[in-house]
Amino acid sequence: MKDLESLSATQAAKALARREIKATDLLLSCLDRIGQRESPVKPWASLGKENALSCAKDLDKGAIKGLLHGLPIGVKDLFDTYDLPTSYGSPIYANHYPVVDAVSVALMRQAGGIILGKTVSTEFATFKPPITVNPHHGRFTPGGSSSGSAAAVADFMVPLATGSQTAGSIIRPASYCGVVGFKPSFGKIMTAGVKALAPSLDTLGCFGRSVGDVALGVAAMSDDHDLINIKDLHNKPRIGICKTEDWSLASKETAAALALARFTAESIAKGAVNDIHLPIECKDLTQTQARIMSSEMSRALLFERMHFAKKLSPQLIKQLTEGAQIHYDQYQSDLVKTLSARSSLKQLLNQEIDILIAPSALGEAPLAKEGTGDPVFCRGWTLLGLPCINLNISHGPNGLPVGIQLIAGFGKDHFLLSAARAFALALPDPALRDQA
Amino acid sequence: MKDLESLSATQAAKALARREIKATDLLLSCLDRIGQRESPVKPWASLGKENALSCAKDLDKGAIKGLLHGLPIGVKDLFDTYDLPTSYGSPIYANHYPVVDAVSVALMRQAGGIILGKTVSTEFATFKPPITVNPHHGRFTPGGSSSGSAAAVADFMVPLATGSQTAGSIIRPASYCGVVGFKPSFGKIMTAGVKALAPSLDTLGCFGRSVGDVALGVAAMSDDHDLINIKDLHNKPRIGICKTEDWSLASKETAAALALARFTAESIAKGAVNDIHLPIECKDLTQTQARIMSSEMSRALLFERMHFAKKLSPQLIKQLTEGAQIHYDQYQSDLVKTLSARSSLKQLLNQEIDILIAPSALGEAPLAKEGTGDPVFCRGWTLLGLPCINLNISHGPNGLPVGIQLIAGFGKDHFLLSAARAFALALPDPALRDQA
Repeated sequence: MKDLESLSATQAAKALARREIKATDLLLSCLDRIGQRESPVKPWASLGKENALSCAKDLDKGAIKGLLHGLPIGVKDLFDTYDLPTSYGSPIYANHYPVVDAVSVALMRQAGGIILGKTVSTEFATFKPPITVNPHHGRFTPGGSSSGSAAAVADFMVPLATGSQTAGSIIRPASYCGVVGFKPSFGKIMTAGVKALAPSLDTLGCFGRSVGDVALGVAAMSDDHDLINIKDLHNKPRIGICKTEDWSLASKETAAALALARFTAESIAKGAVNDIHLPIECKDLTQTQARIMSSEMSRALLFERMHFAKKLSPQLIKQLTEGAQIHYDQYQSDLVKTLSARSSLKQLLNQEIDILIAPSALGEAPLAKEGTGDPVFCRGWTLLGLPCINLNISHGPNGLPVGIQLIAGFGKDHFLLSAARAFALALPDPALRDQA
Repeated sequence: MKDLESLSATQAAKALARREIKATDLLLSCLDRIGQRESPVKPWASLGKENALSCAKDLDKGAIKGLLHGLPIGVKDLFDTYDLPTSYGSPIYANHYPVVDAVSVALMRQAGGIILGKTVSTEFATFKPPITVNPHHGRFTPGGSSSGSAAAVADFMVPLATGSQTAGSIIRPASYCGVVGFKPSFGKIMTAGVKALAPSLDTLGCFGRSVGDVALGVAAMSDDHDLINIKDLHNKPRIGICKTEDWSLASKETAAALALARFTAESIAKGAVNDIHLPIECKDLTQTQARIMSSEMSRALLFERMHFAKKLSPQLIKQLTEGAQIHYDQYQSDLVKTLSARSSLKQLLNQEIDILIAPSALGEAPLAKEGTGDPVFCRGWTLLGLPCINLNISHGPNGLPVGIQLIAGFGKDHFLLSAARAFALALPDPALRDQA
């Protein structure tokens, strides 16, 4: 029963379903690990040990409940839970108990998942630095806004944790913490019960330590159970590298990671792996995403601005004020532009390319005191609504992880999982192949 | 100061902004009317008289706050309000006080609207008959699920009330009650803080007694203030009649209403007003909508099904159970079909036709004991995400109102308002032209 906490979600789920391990023992291992590591890393906003233990005991006694039977799960504190406080990362909601679970949380419980606790989110999933630090080195940020989830999974406290991405809040912390992060297609997982930030962009997903893990998480959260049957690729995929318009901002370690990704892709791709330039309709996606996000945030958080302005951070107030000043015509034309960009990419991803590979972040994690890092390499993909997976591929000058993201066409989540697994298995470093 | 409650929202808003009438007096007139008529019609789930009066007094003393300055508003009890109980039409949530307003409610308050009370919704906006009856005749239904909002506006209790439509919950009650109902383009108004039923379909809107009224309501709820500037049509629109695949279900009064709509349209249309058949991609839209709705409902209301099954109506339990049995593959292919139908209609509505006219409901309101009526003539348009406006055009054998709906291309909400006004002004019955 030693080291159960180091099992991946997929390994643990199999062993639990076969009754080879007990949910209670797995949970106790995770709690042990949390006891040792909570203080330096601080990924937890709250823990529900008693409820979790009682749930684990029931699961050990009863029938196999579903895909997540007996798995301890961390839930980003942006998701409503009826039995754990939900603060949305803001003092306004300290000790707030929602009356109902977020839909995705209810689905995970129905699948036998044990909600062990809530993981730290930045303030309303925006940019104020959280208390959580990078588990690989405490001076650095784990990224944001799903800071606690990425850190808890990277640090073996839970095998699976939920996240949400409006700009780059799943892929970026996954890259900084060296875990697999999956942001499925926009709308794949219902957002009901998750605090809205920018509803045209808000996308739910999860973190795990392998492609199979995140498939399992999203399968339960979306109710699309077939996602866990990750198929071998029948045909070699056509793979392109997309450096994006913001490539000049990339660090050396990100450039090296992308070169390594290209090398890896070449071994599984059909034909050459060339640089892909997005269609003209995709020009300025990053700025478009930032404006839509700011404009929608100013409405989504209007109540808090009207009633609790003093409990909002100055930087959030600033962003909300700027967002409220964006003219509706600008917002509307940004939405029209988005539709046209999405349709141009649909063509590209149907006709020319199956998988795009792109940077996940500027580089390795910056210092915690400098913020949660820049989501610039994720903004456009989030706006396009495309499914993205971060894989750990390399490391930077401080020895911290550096990831890249694989991207597929809208709705091709299942195919993306297959491609990500094939890619992970082709990585030159055998230790990184565990991510498959 | 007599009869202030009979002013339309547009008339009242103008008089309030010019300080010709006081918010307090308008509110007292509405409360008088409610006092007389609440008992037979029952549109209110709760009223916040004291808060509303104190808010009205503040508005009378202070500067003009915004578009809705001093207007008393009914909010469907599916929308969260921090100062009024929010039951979602279900005993599960009796005396539930959310901690925060729905985004659209916060926007209405910011614009100076006075939230006078919550209007009756059917159980989670589904099909169980509500206590509210049709204000024109108490034996008949006001329609659903926005039952109380449509009835309260029709009965001059408030000039404006909010609604939501997942199948036909704005357009159908508007038709049954003889008021103007506006379901804007999908996504136009943020749904955050409104209980989710089927997020791919849930669309917010409002009821008023004129096209200007609903423009005012949606302008405030969406923050797109320019919507209130309803422009004269520069060019005659190309108008088509769309009887839809379900035409065989239409009653005689609906057939007569559509004939009258065609006659009216001919006087404002460019060229002949012909029957339009939707592209082949739109086949079986009604069934597709019903499946997507049932499938998503089974997830959206999973928590209530897990924890409070005994407090759900048998008919809702049945629908949720059936929804949960829809295979995810079917759901997914229905979503893909929807995208293709939307894109086929985008072409039609760009290249051939500017405005479609279609039935709003099978006929006049059925008996209250028979349910809230069939949303069949709305399901497809909701699925397509197109903006729809109901106008009262005729009446049925029981003397109850019969409406038709005008429909424009996605995102063309502003143009639809212009066309609806031109159409209303062309109606042969001068009394109905007030709807412009």
